[in-house]
Amino acid sequence: MDLIKSKYWSNRIKDNEAYVPGEQINEDTYIKLNANENPYPPSKNAQNAIQQMDKSKLRLYPDFGCHKLRTEIAKYYNIKTDEVFVGNGSDEVLAFSFLAFFNPGDYICSPNVTYSFYIVYASFFNLRYKPIPLDADFNIVLNDLFIDNGGLIIANPNALTGKIVSINFIENILKKNINSLIIIDEAYIDFGGDSAAGLIKKYPNLLIIQTFSKSRSLAGLRIGFALGNKDLIEGLNRVKNSINSYTLDSIAIVGAAAALKDKNYFKLITNKIIDTREKISRKLKDLGFIVTDSKANFIFISYPGINAKRIYMLLKERKILVRYFEVSGIDNFLRVSIGTNEQMEYFFKSIKEIIENFKG
Amino acid sequence: MDLIKSKYWSNRIKDNEAYVPGEQINEDTYIKLNANENPYPPSKNAQNAIQQMDKSKLRLYPDFGCHKLRTEIAKYYNIKTDEVFVGNGSDEVLAFSFLAFFNPGDYICSPNVTYSFYIVYASFFNLRYKPIPLDADFNIVLNDLFIDNGGLIIANPNALTGKIVSINFIENILKKNINSLIIIDEAYIDFGGDSAAGLIKKYPNLLIIQTFSKSRSLAGLRIGFALGNKDLIEGLNRVKNSINSYTLDSIAIVGAAAALKDKNYFKLITNKIIDTREKISRKLKDLGFIVTDSKANFIFISYPGINAKRIYMLLKERKILVRYFEVSGIDNFLRVSIGTNEQMEYFFKSIKEIIENFKG
Repeated sequence: MDLIKSKYWSNRIKDNEAYVPGEQINEDTYIKLNANENPYPPSKNAQNAIQQMDKSKLRLYPDFGCHKLRTEIAKYYNIKTDEVFVGNGSDEVLAFSFLAFFNPGDYICSPNVTYSFYIVYASFFNLRYKPIPLDADFNIVLNDLFIDNGGLIIANPNALTGKIVSINFIENILKKNINSLIIIDEAYIDFGGDSAAGLIKKYPNLLIIQTFSKSRSLAGLRIGFALGNKDLIEGLNRVKNSINSYTLDSIAIVGAAAALKDKNYFKLITNKIIDTREKISRKLKDLGFIVTDSKANFIFISYPGINAKRIYMLLKERKILVRYFEVSGIDNFLRVSIGTNEQMEYFFKSIKEIIENFKG
Repeated sequence: MDLIKSKYWSNRIKDNEAYVPGEQINEDTYIKLNANENPYPPSKNAQNAIQQMDKSKLRLYPDFGCHKLRTEIAKYYNIKTDEVFVGNGSDEVLAFSFLAFFNPGDYICSPNVTYSFYIVYASFFNLRYKPIPLDADFNIVLNDLFIDNGGLIIANPNALTGKIVSINFIENILKKNINSLIIIDEAYIDFGGDSAAGLIKKYPNLLIIQTFSKSRSLAGLRIGFALGNKDLIEGLNRVKNSINSYTLDSIAIVGAAAALKDKNYFKLITNKIIDTREKISRKLKDLGFIVTDSKANFIFISYPGINAKRIYMLLKERKILVRYFEVSGIDNFLRVSIGTNEQMEYFFKSIKEIIENFKG
């Protein structure tokens, strides 16, 4: 924690603990398996659409309503355009949701471990964060999820373990908490899970948040979105229009809309990543690793008796970057993004040698 | 005001009055002089840099620190990189500043009339907004600007009238309010004003905010920035990292950095706009208009005895879109962005006919 204080700072930033994203290191010297980026380039559709845009038009403000992109997303999920909100990455959409739907002092619950940014938002916006502990195998215990006030946020799949809950499970929560807002963060849903998008028509308390940064390979363009009842979407628009009228630039709008239309490529790369994940998971299990049942584009692994931070550092020496969280309960785990088959083979060879050196 | 309410909404959005940007209308059928967009395309440097970027790299997150762009801005203003913050348009930088430097209940003052988004931020973040009335000629009265707590924000040039205050005037305010944060919003400074950027080394209470949307012709890319003492910049980073780690996409970072280096083109188009502004101002004055002394890329005009809203509507019928504000004190004025010489000639011909029809 940085000790600099300025007398001009507001109270909310004086003691604030901001989110820390995965290290950024020159891609040419490291294999970067620490930020859950997609190893495959974005759809050629998207790349071409960006290339062909008339750049002289950048003198004009983007479309205020991001209509073209919202229409494509609505088509994709078979819902209405006014049931779609778009923002600058799912992080911005999450932050806006905290502002739109929770009051200072509200309890916001989340099965924990989870995406650590939720705790940052809660603190920054003066909410009370109530972690709901997972069981020993990182499963959510359904009975713990019936809440009194505030809201509930679930990363599905879980942002650390990759574990998923079913649509039925979510519907149960929605029914029993009809007066509370339930946010399902589906950042990783396209790698083997089923979106709960079909439930938004039935449950006015459901907000789904997704991103183009993972399955669409567009982390560099900053596009996230929310699906929900039109009143919830109107709530998000009110926040946006009180902060920044234009959060998506003209290029991002065009690129994202084009990416969404390329369904074949999307299937191809998500299936490739799933195959690679299953392959590396089996091999790591055979080697003695604990590997959670991930439905995301990463795996969450631990080797009994060998310190995860030490493995993290030895991998880094071998120019492989994975994510280590110094957080109680998961401090013997590593989160490893799924790269290409070749990258994961090199990763496996390296971690196998590291483990064998420990044993030997 | 929309009457929809949702039981899931937070109190802060229930009665909120969001900012309303200039109408967006198909550019091919209207002459759009309502959003202060630049009539000239962005620098070829910027267009080429965007074109030449490897779009496959969009799979990766942008540079977390936007280092390349911040370095170019620092060079331009002869300051250090850690004295520069960049954000998604100056609106986002303004919103983050309100979060970073003011506490709920603080007074935030602004010479009024001003950019109406300041009032939206104040309300949204639970500050008390204290307008400081301008004199009858829209001048700021210096003695009114010595404040007790909270902060002061001045759009220089003024976002409606285009009128400017001098560096000396600003330095006086900074000296006498050393315990309060003073924000100078220089969105329009490049059209004939002098930036107060040189004062940030001397005054730890000065934050300057600028944008690439006006003089750099990049409204479509969403880039704003702030200059200030490194503690103020660290405050803004704390807010950013509590909301959204990556607010500028990879393309915007590259495009903006390239635009900044093209000083010749920048001089060419800002001078062109200044010439056009002076020419149209003289002609409108000769016709009997009141025209404020604007140093921005727009003019603020009124015709004694003829209703401004009526003129606005008659211009719209002639496919010219200008900005009319239904706000007491300025409700007989129109704000007209400076287009190309040809556009302004057509504008002049049209408004002249409208005035003559009224008289005839």
